[in-house]
Amino acid sequence: MHVVANAAMSADGKLSSRRREQVVISGPDDFARVDALRASCDAVLVGGGTVRADDPHLTVEDPDLRAERREAGKPPHPARVVVDTRARTPPDGRVLDDAAVSYVLVGESAPEDRRTVLRDAGTELLVAGDERVDLAVGFAALEAEGIDRLLVEGGGEILFSAFEAGLVDELSLFVGSLLIGGRDAPTLADGMGFVDEFPALDLKDVERVDDGVLCRYAVE
Amino acid sequence: MHVVANAAMSADGKLSSRRREQVVISGPDDFARVDALRASCDAVLVGGGTVRADDPHLTVEDPDLRAERREAGKPPHPARVVVDTRARTPPDGRVLDDAAVSYVLVGESAPEDRRTVLRDAGTELLVAGDERVDLAVGFAALEAEGIDRLLVEGGGEILFSAFEAGLVDELSLFVGSLLIGGRDAPTLADGMGFVDEFPALDLKDVERVDDGVLCRYAVE
Repeated sequence: MHVVANAAMSADGKLSSRRREQVVISGPDDFARVDALRASCDAVLVGGGTVRADDPHLTVEDPDLRAERREAGKPPHPARVVVDTRARTPPDGRVLDDAAVSYVLVGESAPEDRRTVLRDAGTELLVAGDERVDLAVGFAALEAEGIDRLLVEGGGEILFSAFEAGLVDELSLFVGSLLIGGRDAPTLADGMGFVDEFPALDLKDVERVDDGVLCRYAVE
Repeated sequence: MHVVANAAMSADGKLSSRRREQVVISGPDDFARVDALRASCDAVLVGGGTVRADDPHLTVEDPDLRAERREAGKPPHPARVVVDTRARTPPDGRVLDDAAVSYVLVGESAPEDRRTVLRDAGTELLVAGDERVDLAVGFAALEAEGIDRLLVEGGGEILFSAFEAGLVDELSLFVGSLLIGGRDAPTLADGMGFVDEFPALDLKDVERVDDGVLCRYAVE
């Protein structure tokens, strides 16, 4: 499986404000780039916190990109995947609607009544790990479902976990020309953080996009 | 007074690990750039937390740059400034040595015995604010001392405060090709964070430096 991480952060590394409210960080050119990136993938993955904060749809906006996918024998949108240990994703969340296939990666500890709610919403549940979703196990389960190219869109806890587990192959990072600030605001990579060895990135490309900078890295 | 902020952060916006241990983020070309930037300024300012964590010297390394300063009738190094409300900077810190003039911006609440220790170390104390140093007042006091061009090097609390007070004119930001991670690791702009209005930056230049990216912004 090839795993691409993508995120837009402020110049100080934040994904949103400390209130977890979405901030406009990028612009139309970066939105179009992310849309094309989604269209190139078999599934798009986010954490449960991102779903509860932003209620994202994670679908492909551009009808031409959807048509291309159909012509290639694929569904119009990639599958959506939510990492949600305790199965707390609201069943009416846009990410679980019938626009595309939806998976929720849950832990063994997920309550049975919550699982039932999600299954009744038409969601495929994949159990990976116990008290906390084990992303390596979850990604293997997704691969067994035929997902060969996975886009990880955040938030910062999921991105950190994916990097910590060595699961990410490339990172596309839009650095917006604004400051969000805040010692408690979510960043690109949260979690416990690295302390001895720091994952090295290999800068493949840097360019101006919208009023910011797009950096593309291979993960070493 | 013209205020330049400069920092090196990881690709996820961190200045150091959650243990506050310094991490090598940039390389020799960026060190040389920062050295020249220091040499172009009348003073270099950091927060007390940075002094206690890193014991920086904040002097100009390159003898040619020092010679140029001397030829221009300036001291070889810019002055060093520590923002330290309670005057807790260790008197044997490198930032207070006799290589250059040193100022400490303290609050009215700074204990007299600590002030005496710093004065005895040959440091100039400037009182600005009470329970917390008021950077606007402190910068005005520095300007009255003849400092027309000030470099703010961090950490994230000071940088946030300086941006919050609208005191920064430009930002030079090196984005290193590594991840540090950690929801508790210091970032480029910590503090309480912005929630409604976010300071806009105007990207003036972006280039590859060492194995990372240097972005230069004007602050709008």
